[in-house]
Amino acid sequence: MSALDELLAYQRDTEALAQIAGRLGWDQETMMPRGAADQRGEEMAAMEGMLHARRTDPRLGAWLAALEGAELDPVAAAKLRHIRRSFDRATRVPARLAAEIARVTSVSQGKWAEARAADDFAAFAPVLAKVVALKREEGQALAAGGDVYDAMIDDYEPDMTAAQLDAMFGEMRPRLVALREAILDKPMPDGLTGSFPEEAQMALSRRLAETFGYDFTRGRIDKAVHPFSSGSGSDVRITTRTSPADPFNCFYSTIHEVGHACYEQGIDPDYALTPLGSGVSMGVHESQSRIYENQLGRSRAFTGYLYQQMQQAFGDLGVSGADAFYAAVNRVQKDYIRTEADEVQYNLHIMLRFDLEKALISGDLAVADLEGAWNERFERDFGYAVPRASLGCLQDVHWSVGLFGYFPTYSLGNVYAGCLHAALRRDVSDLDAQLARGDTGPATAWLRERVQRHGGLMTPQEVITQACGHAPSAGPLLDYIEAKFTGLYAL
Amino acid sequence: MSALDELLAYQRDTEALAQIAGRLGWDQETMMPRGAADQRGEEMAAMEGMLHARRTDPRLGAWLAALEGAELDPVAAAKLRHIRRSFDRATRVPARLAAEIARVTSVSQGKWAEARAADDFAAFAPVLAKVVALKREEGQALAAGGDVYDAMIDDYEPDMTAAQLDAMFGEMRPRLVALREAILDKPMPDGLTGSFPEEAQMALSRRLAETFGYDFTRGRIDKAVHPFSSGSGSDVRITTRTSPADPFNCFYSTIHEVGHACYEQGIDPDYALTPLGSGVSMGVHESQSRIYENQLGRSRAFTGYLYQQMQQAFGDLGVSGADAFYAAVNRVQKDYIRTEADEVQYNLHIMLRFDLEKALISGDLAVADLEGAWNERFERDFGYAVPRASLGCLQDVHWSVGLFGYFPTYSLGNVYAGCLHAALRRDVSDLDAQLARGDTGPATAWLRERVQRHGGLMTPQEVITQACGHAPSAGPLLDYIEAKFTGLYAL
Repeated sequence: MSALDELLAYQRDTEALAQIAGRLGWDQETMMPRGAADQRGEEMAAMEGMLHARRTDPRLGAWLAALEGAELDPVAAAKLRHIRRSFDRATRVPARLAAEIARVTSVSQGKWAEARAADDFAAFAPVLAKVVALKREEGQALAAGGDVYDAMIDDYEPDMTAAQLDAMFGEMRPRLVALREAILDKPMPDGLTGSFPEEAQMALSRRLAETFGYDFTRGRIDKAVHPFSSGSGSDVRITTRTSPADPFNCFYSTIHEVGHACYEQGIDPDYALTPLGSGVSMGVHESQSRIYENQLGRSRAFTGYLYQQMQQAFGDLGVSGADAFYAAVNRVQKDYIRTEADEVQYNLHIMLRFDLEKALISGDLAVADLEGAWNERFERDFGYAVPRASLGCLQDVHWSVGLFGYFPTYSLGNVYAGCLHAALRRDVSDLDAQLARGDTGPATAWLRERVQRHGGLMTPQEVITQACGHAPSAGPLLDYIEAKFTGLYAL
Repeated sequence: MSALDELLAYQRDTEALAQIAGRLGWDQETMMPRGAADQRGEEMAAMEGMLHARRTDPRLGAWLAALEGAELDPVAAAKLRHIRRSFDRATRVPARLAAEIARVTSVSQGKWAEARAADDFAAFAPVLAKVVALKREEGQALAAGGDVYDAMIDDYEPDMTAAQLDAMFGEMRPRLVALREAILDKPMPDGLTGSFPEEAQMALSRRLAETFGYDFTRGRIDKAVHPFSSGSGSDVRITTRTSPADPFNCFYSTIHEVGHACYEQGIDPDYALTPLGSGVSMGVHESQSRIYENQLGRSRAFTGYLYQQMQQAFGDLGVSGADAFYAAVNRVQKDYIRTEADEVQYNLHIMLRFDLEKALISGDLAVADLEGAWNERFERDFGYAVPRASLGCLQDVHWSVGLFGYFPTYSLGNVYAGCLHAALRRDVSDLDAQLARGDTGPATAWLRERVQRHGGLMTPQEVITQACGHAPSAGPLLDYIEAKFTGLYAL
């Protein structure tokens, strides 16, 4: 076998084992008996240790060195690029540091849950300070002399930098704050009333998943506390949740996860179990979940179809018609929780976290001062005060598990979705007529052809650029949001 | 770290990874989307390859060499014994041969399924001949100069030999044939009539699992085509099946798997994720499933309780009372299929396979002559002819996947169960009164204390011997079967 064949065969096994590790995570959230948690922790640690050993195996370095400079076709070259990237990142972090991060974040996650339940940031601050210090050390190792926070972003969105995000968010923030202020002066539309049995929610969820092109022969849907999508290739599973009083939570969680899952299911099958066989970045992944959920799923056209479906499933919904239903779907309200935010306020949540975590990593903000800084910034952007830490800086799990550099990819996904949506409307005529009858086929086919099938072949920015015909920018998203909510709220 | 600590830490990771591989098998039979089969095959192959590399890692040999002869406590010594055994077996089989067996048995299993569907043994014979040749070669490697078939048995039942089984089966066969002949001259008791909705079957299955002490906080029950138990430690899952016309199939499959699962759940938690943390052999495992299913579950006392439970769940069962229900549970009938056989005929099925597979491996029986040999022997032991291959030599999957030496452990399990049952009745007074009210607590506590908690600490024969107070023998099983069926059929 040539060095390339050997390298790719080795990598294929690693990819297959990583799929198993991911499915173990799915099992933990959906099927695992509750008494199995401790044993599962050991199983996961053994699996991660084995995968880390494979990803830092010196043979990888030798194969890569032998191949770099060789003439390769674009697909092989892209695979090598991913393997090189993974190998460099994995070998730059000392094993001692990786183990210490795993140990401390495991403790920290428990402390976070306790502190959130007690609304007590001070109880969480000491362990968070340890996490920040360790992640900073890891970032320094990864940056190899470059910017530490950029190295962290790079884990989730290759080639993206804080400077690019600063410029993008600088354009978004004033327009979104102004829109939020204008909307919250207006009366809030009514929500739904009625009865929404959870079994009927799950049944309609399944139909919606099919409507959006999710392939149940290569996936399944189950209930979990937190909705997620898991797996690549021919086994991509999603979860959703039901709440008796809030059917939209179920349906839009489902559509969101279907967006993630259709991305994975849409990748060229030739790339399965290779470094090209999964979504290229968190930002591009989120662009798919967001365009399915928001630009398509929360459009006036598609909500007209959903209104009919929900009436058939649940009877009277307590709203006066399809326009009132559309307004209920897109209600903007005073709230504190990122995951429940509407399209207007969502990105304000992200910018807040982005600025605070940059400052935590650089040391400009001490962990002890985080709660105050959060609350001050929140009131400035949202116009009302945070009443307690569980609605403020303790609401998200991310920092407790060491996820720094991850939050901005949520907004990046929205920005990418904005660009893709504009291009989609340019290329697919009659989109609203299709969505109004529940036909997402032309839209999802466009996304599959332009974005999904490429998997990891290009860089994230290349994927969006070739799909849209221009480099990604915040303008299309902002124009879309302003037009939509100006109309909805008669501004 | 000492060599012992290093070895045991390494082994612990291997055990944890093996648990993951097992759970992947569970997922495949219960949850996996059907389109994921090909990818799953690659995932499993990567997992098995990784586990094989760990089990043959030269460091294991070095650690073992450094430790053998050292003074160790009995628990550490038992762990070393298992690791040495696994290492020797794994290293004796050349990688080329292991890969070839994996490849051929994968093909062979498909050919077997096709041949069974077509009732065409000749279509299966060529690939079976390849499997036999490869397994013989593997057996020769494992035997290292000893008896080839004994080396195969040893994979499933350490220290057991064909000579011991020959002697045991020689005692059993005439008594079981005579009993079968006497019974089949008598009229067959009536079966149940009524309606047995599958959801109600599953609900009662769950209650029966609890009745027999299965701990749902460390397990779960799902439906699968073939019932099985999977996993060790704190995550032991079972499956069962439902058939609208045959509720006993569901209930006794469940109780059987609960026996396997309670064995795993009953092992000393200190042994979890060590070589002592799972059932010690196939025979001892089967002894637990069989004593739960037959000696307890099909007893007159327990069937009285089950009769009430089934009446509550399904209404009229079409039998005249608890005695008639007991007779229906224990019906002996002319049939061809091992997995559906009653207590009288079951071991006759095993002896047939045992003698034929010994002859296949030794070369005394050519694969081409297998069908004829099977049919001739069947008619001799069962008294009626096999009408077609799917009811004869094509009925079991085992040989197609290379399982030789496995079948006799089923009967060994029955023999062990017979010994344990006699000892249990000696030690636990009022057993029938307890079972009659659905209280299996004292029986299962006795099994847990005497057998289950020890896991792999002793050899299989030692476990049974210390539990019963004497070495295992077929006498107690034969006495029990003769007494039970002589009563049932008024012989």
